[in-house]
Amino acid sequence: MNEERNGAAALSAALREKKLTLAAAESCTGGLFSKCMTDLSGASEIYHGGVVSYVNEVKARVLGVSPETLDRFGAVSAETAGEMAQGVRRACGSDLGISFTGVAGPRRDDRGNAVGTVYVGIATENETYVNLLRLAGDRDTIRTLAVEKGLELLLELLREKGE
Amino acid sequence: MNEERNGAAALSAALREKKLTLAAAESCTGGLFSKCMTDLSGASEIYHGGVVSYVNEVKARVLGVSPETLDRFGAVSAETAGEMAQGVRRACGSDLGISFTGVAGPRRDDRGNAVGTVYVGIATENETYVNLLRLAGDRDTIRTLAVEKGLELLLELLREKGE
Repeated sequence: MNEERNGAAALSAALREKKLTLAAAESCTGGLFSKCMTDLSGASEIYHGGVVSYVNEVKARVLGVSPETLDRFGAVSAETAGEMAQGVRRACGSDLGISFTGVAGPRRDDRGNAVGTVYVGIATENETYVNLLRLAGDRDTIRTLAVEKGLELLLELLREKGE
Repeated sequence: MNEERNGAAALSAALREKKLTLAAAESCTGGLFSKCMTDLSGASEIYHGGVVSYVNEVKARVLGVSPETLDRFGAVSAETAGEMAQGVRRACGSDLGISFTGVAGPRRDDRGNAVGTVYVGIATENETYVNLLRLAGDRDTIRTLAVEKGLELLLELLREKGE
């Protein structure tokens, strides 16, 4: 658990410094990202919370992912990841949004995406970025690695873009 | 982590047997309940997901908790717990909703609620139950105990009421 704790602490400090707030939309990670961000007390100043959209109905109803996107590209896709990240930003009223959608295993999904395929979406007010990860390991390992990578990607963005 | 895993497995089996679905609204537990419910593969058949409402804005906007309730009783109250549980049930389109709102520490909240005070709300279509827990320990321990107790309370309800 130490790597996520360190990543969450570093990201929290960067958000605090830049006076930015964050929210997360989680599918395959199932709440682990939110759990890590709120391990630290005082998190509410920078972390608004998020949505665990484990079924498509929640992606559409709560996050506003378009049913056409889900139908055409599937839940595990760059398109859905991008809409989830923007959707959670809007729903939770935060400056930034991050999303995770992928296949934690133990089996491929119904569209044939391999275990370990995870899309991480990041939304700012004007831009959306999506990263495709190919992770290896069991279900726990894939979920943990996805969260660690998400923390890293957000931290890089904050550093590079001065967001 | 074993106690939560066992609790989540037992609850998942009971939900599956009764063909019921669940969603969670988490404040102090920050996503840990959702994480536990989705540790098991195939969770989407019974677990719709949930909302991590770490700030009041998300409780009101996403879960529909009334601003009057938040203002009058505070975020850590039986009233808010009940509205969160009903709200997440509605938002996520599940049969049952569970909520967690409390003080994980290390300090009392701004209304003077002691560290370890946690309200767990459970919502069915027609009823709302709220339990007040007084837990002891550090932040991690309080969050873990709250989740374990929530799993237990839901399982009891399913067994007793035949819900």
